[in-house]
Amino acid sequence: MTVFPAGQQFQTEGECLPSYQARLACRAGQADTTAGVAPGFVQGNLAILPEKFAAAFHRFCQLNPKPCPIIGMSDVGNPQIPALGLDLDIRTDLPRYRVWRDGELIEEPTDVMAHWRDDLVAFVIGCSFSFEEALLADDIPIRHIERKVRVPMYRTNIACAPAGPFAGPMVVSMWPLKPADAIRAVQITSRFPSVHGAPVHIGLPQSIGIADIANPDYGDPVPIAPDELPVFWACGVTPQAVIAAAKVPFAITHAPGLMLVTDLKNKHLAVL
Amino acid sequence: MTVFPAGQQFQTEGECLPSYQARLACRAGQADTTAGVAPGFVQGNLAILPEKFAAAFHRFCQLNPKPCPIIGMSDVGNPQIPALGLDLDIRTDLPRYRVWRDGELIEEPTDVMAHWRDDLVAFVIGCSFSFEEALLADDIPIRHIERKVRVPMYRTNIACAPAGPFAGPMVVSMWPLKPADAIRAVQITSRFPSVHGAPVHIGLPQSIGIADIANPDYGDPVPIAPDELPVFWACGVTPQAVIAAAKVPFAITHAPGLMLVTDLKNKHLAVL
Repeated sequence: MTVFPAGQQFQTEGECLPSYQARLACRAGQADTTAGVAPGFVQGNLAILPEKFAAAFHRFCQLNPKPCPIIGMSDVGNPQIPALGLDLDIRTDLPRYRVWRDGELIEEPTDVMAHWRDDLVAFVIGCSFSFEEALLADDIPIRHIERKVRVPMYRTNIACAPAGPFAGPMVVSMWPLKPADAIRAVQITSRFPSVHGAPVHIGLPQSIGIADIANPDYGDPVPIAPDELPVFWACGVTPQAVIAAAKVPFAITHAPGLMLVTDLKNKHLAVL
Repeated sequence: MTVFPAGQQFQTEGECLPSYQARLACRAGQADTTAGVAPGFVQGNLAILPEKFAAAFHRFCQLNPKPCPIIGMSDVGNPQIPALGLDLDIRTDLPRYRVWRDGELIEEPTDVMAHWRDDLVAFVIGCSFSFEEALLADDIPIRHIERKVRVPMYRTNIACAPAGPFAGPMVVSMWPLKPADAIRAVQITSRFPSVHGAPVHIGLPQSIGIADIANPDYGDPVPIAPDELPVFWACGVTPQAVIAAAKVPFAITHAPGLMLVTDLKNKHLAVL
């Protein structure tokens, strides 16, 4: 595949995709968020691990598909993932990265060219952004979007199936819905198994180990009205938390909310 | 279509269906229930109205498909519904009927030969029995079946869309489920739109006008554990309640729990 430097004249239709333009902007250091960027295109969470740990992490994802749905991965040492995007370079095409050593966050660079190694494997993991679009299109309100805050996320008592050094609780995201909307949201998100799919819980936070719904472990709290139920989806923060807890010697992830924009379309992820 | 009298030697494969045998037993006065009869075959609620009211009732069902999903209807004055079963005679093939005059229940005969008129139209309405089978096959527990009681049913504050003299609140059935089972039950019952489909509510009975969950308006109460949510489906008692409230001069319905057994298979009602 030909690599086009940022700013080069577009040659084909694919090169004009808003998703490709978003990646080029990231690559050129001209992007500081992916929120609201390239509407309709799939954004993914990133996890990069040395080959020595990649097989166990891949198995972890296989065993825990709801929090860790893999939508793409690279060959060992190859920074491109052609199936996810034209000219995609996983080292440069996100706005910001997190570099981890032994479970400690050591740097948040805007590219990882200097950190790239021939033994690294990149995993791109589906994200609930993809079905938020379908929910909004169906007039299902999404509280954290309405309030322009980060989605509240909680560690649960639901144990992920462990694989090698990777183990830990499932992290869930939550938003409150009226019961009829919650039922509709189950139907809609069930169509998107590759981006977390149906909720994992509804209505009884204490049943999944959430003691205080007003104090999320990640993100921002949102109010729940008396005629609403909290609805919980498996969350892509799970693999990040698990990687940090595993204290692997080296790992790279995306910075929260600053995702990989792919050329896949959200609507194409629907199975029905 | 040839009409086979009860007990006649079966001539074809269709005549051997357990559903047909069940109808013949009803016709011969040898059946006092349809519970557990002909597993796998669709059972339906019955409503028979004079042609003068049938169009408005048909429109009521059209406007309220969740509580009133029509799975078959007769021509005016014709007691057969070939699409629902071989040799089916709606006047004789249920164990027991209810005959209504001006909204009053006047008789509960085992056939309605003496009440049949050339202006009557029969409606057969889907029933949640059909998806109970799919839920049980998926290991979703159903409390009223476990306890061998009638499902609890409640009048709600959800108004049906009115048509002619037919109007009133939606009646719902309820059973309690753990939240993960409730989510799975939404997925499974969504596949069965012709037998009430997905739940209409979950978790907050007071939001739909149910003041005391322990005191159902119809059926028997069932306990709800602290780690369970009440899940509510639109119920086929709705059209019966609406017909009674409309005080139409004449109507026939099935007696509660004593249904029409059809030759349709429950699994064939699944849309996906």
